[in-house]
Amino acid sequence: MTEGNGVEYLRTGPSRRTLFHAAGAALLLGPLRGASAQDTTPEQRLRGLGLELPPVSQPIANFVQSSRAGNLVYVSGQLPVRDGKVLYPGRVGVEVTPDQAKEAARLCALNVLAVAREACGGSLAAIRGCARLEGFVACVPSFTAQPLVMNGASDLFVAVLGDAGRHARFAVGVAALPLNAAVEVAAVFLVA
Amino acid sequence: MTEGNGVEYLRTGPSRRTLFHAAGAALLLGPLRGASAQDTTPEQRLRGLGLELPPVSQPIANFVQSSRAGNLVYVSGQLPVRDGKVLYPGRVGVEVTPDQAKEAARLCALNVLAVAREACGGSLAAIRGCARLEGFVACVPSFTAQPLVMNGASDLFVAVLGDAGRHARFAVGVAALPLNAAVEVAAVFLVA
Amino acid sequence: MTEGNGVEYLRTGPSRRTLFHAAGAALLLGPLRGASAQDTTPEQRLRGLGLELPPVSQPIANFVQSSRAGNLVYVSGQLPVRDGKVLYPGRVGVEVTPDQAKEAARLCALNVLAVAREACGGSLAAIRGCARLEGFVACVPSFTAQPLVMNGASDLFVAVLGDAGRHARFAVGVAALPLNAAVEVAAVFLVA
Repeated sequence: MTEGNGVEYLRTGPSRRTLFHAAGAALLLGPLRGASAQDTTPEQRLRGLGLELPPVSQPIANFVQSSRAGNLVYVSGQLPVRDGKVLYPGRVGVEVTPDQAKEAARLCALNVLAVAREACGGSLAAIRGCARLEGFVACVPSFTAQPLVMNGASDLFVAVLGDAGRHARFAVGVAALPLNAAVEVAAVFLVA
Repeated sequence: MTEGNGVEYLRTGPSRRTLFHAAGAALLLGPLRGASAQDTTPEQRLRGLGLELPPVSQPIANFVQSSRAGNLVYVSGQLPVRDGKVLYPGRVGVEVTPDQAKEAARLCALNVLAVAREACGGSLAAIRGCARLEGFVACVPSFTAQPLVMNGASDLFVAVLGDAGRHARFAVGVAALPLNAAVEVAAVFLVA
Repeated sequence: MTEGNGVEYLRTGPSRRTLFHAAGAALLLGPLRGASAQDTTPEQRLRGLGLELPPVSQPIANFVQSSRAGNLVYVSGQLPVRDGKVLYPGRVGVEVTPDQAKEAARLCALNVLAVAREACGGSLAAIRGCARLEGFVACVPSFTAQPLVMNGASDLFVAVLGDAGRHARFAVGVAALPLNAAVEVAAVFLVA
């Protein structure tokens, strides 16, 4: 994305409200018999999306996957790992396309949710809100569409958690990530 | 900045106390009739600085500008955007000078405060403290004066919020930022 | 680390449990007369490791070394500085080896603990947990073993604080760091 495109994107992008509706549960799940989006549980939304949370992987180093401080749960930076393998390794602008990185961000977010569920004793329903999503995209210096990439994670949070999945966020482009991953996503949740 | 300069800077830089006084409200606002700095409100300090908080922009992607978890308010990463346009696009060391990046950081901070005020129902007086400011500077690998750049943001926080604006911080140099911005600033506030 | 190695490392790395035991107080301190690891204080562990916390340095810019928000203490990003000098300056993959960067991360962590102790009124015993460790490694784009580097910090936290030192974490590779440091480590603690 050039600077010019970036600015245009800033001016013309759909509003938060629109994006939220587009990604919201009702649209993605289709009509539910007698149930409004508010009545739907995160687990029902997951099934509606045809998704299943992966098993939580062992940390690849000397840390834990989540920690709790009061009502906050910190989830360690998750990589786009599926079945022990990094999806789309490399940097955006070299080996990885923006669309592949967005898919990688979605997989990171799925792993974040898996860890968060475990930290909540096995149920996503204990999540009251997502305080922040932190996104790191490995990329060349000329790539400046980190927000588009990270929407892969943000959209999944909202699709699965509903309003509780809406979050503050930062998204930055970094030099390199563990295991040559293209994306790393960490998060802070507010839990019951 | 070379490593040698960096170390010298570390040794000879003014102490926090000096910096705080230099940036403090009293000095910048001039004498206030019968009012000590403690009596001054953030809004008065803003006016004294000749500043106005910009309108909060729409998020450029699927997230919200702030989220609240208990008494913490997380403000999403803000870019140096004014009137829908990124100020000083590019990387420090290529298109952007350190002084321009510092000015960009100040603009990011102004946007952070605008979001924080909105999150507090319209008044900065509800901010009890700034837990952390998180600064990302897009730069070439040889640029190592990220602290100087981020002072553009830190100084503004203290000038506007007084003691409540003093914060822990990290400042790092990254490969690239959204919309080709030179600086991105996120923050966590403690609110009433 | 190539992608292949990275994936292998993911698959074959020791489990968290093993790593924790390897880095735990009992193993590193040797037998303690009549005292289990649970009875040991952080200060005793420090002495057992032959370590002393350095004096807290003045911030090199306009911020403070720590801030408190409720029971959370945010520690500003610490550099591998000893006696006013940056240890192993440069980037991993150019001037700095992975092992040197790991040693730098350990020194950052020592500075983090020094700040945390000061924030807790002089005693590490007030630390109830480490919510998160945030690690930034200055490196070339081909370096992807940030987790190994950051273990220098993680291992120290656990060795000194015991179970309270176990933490969520993110570790990323960045373009450049203040004062040409190879590593920067920030942290969030839960305190009494």
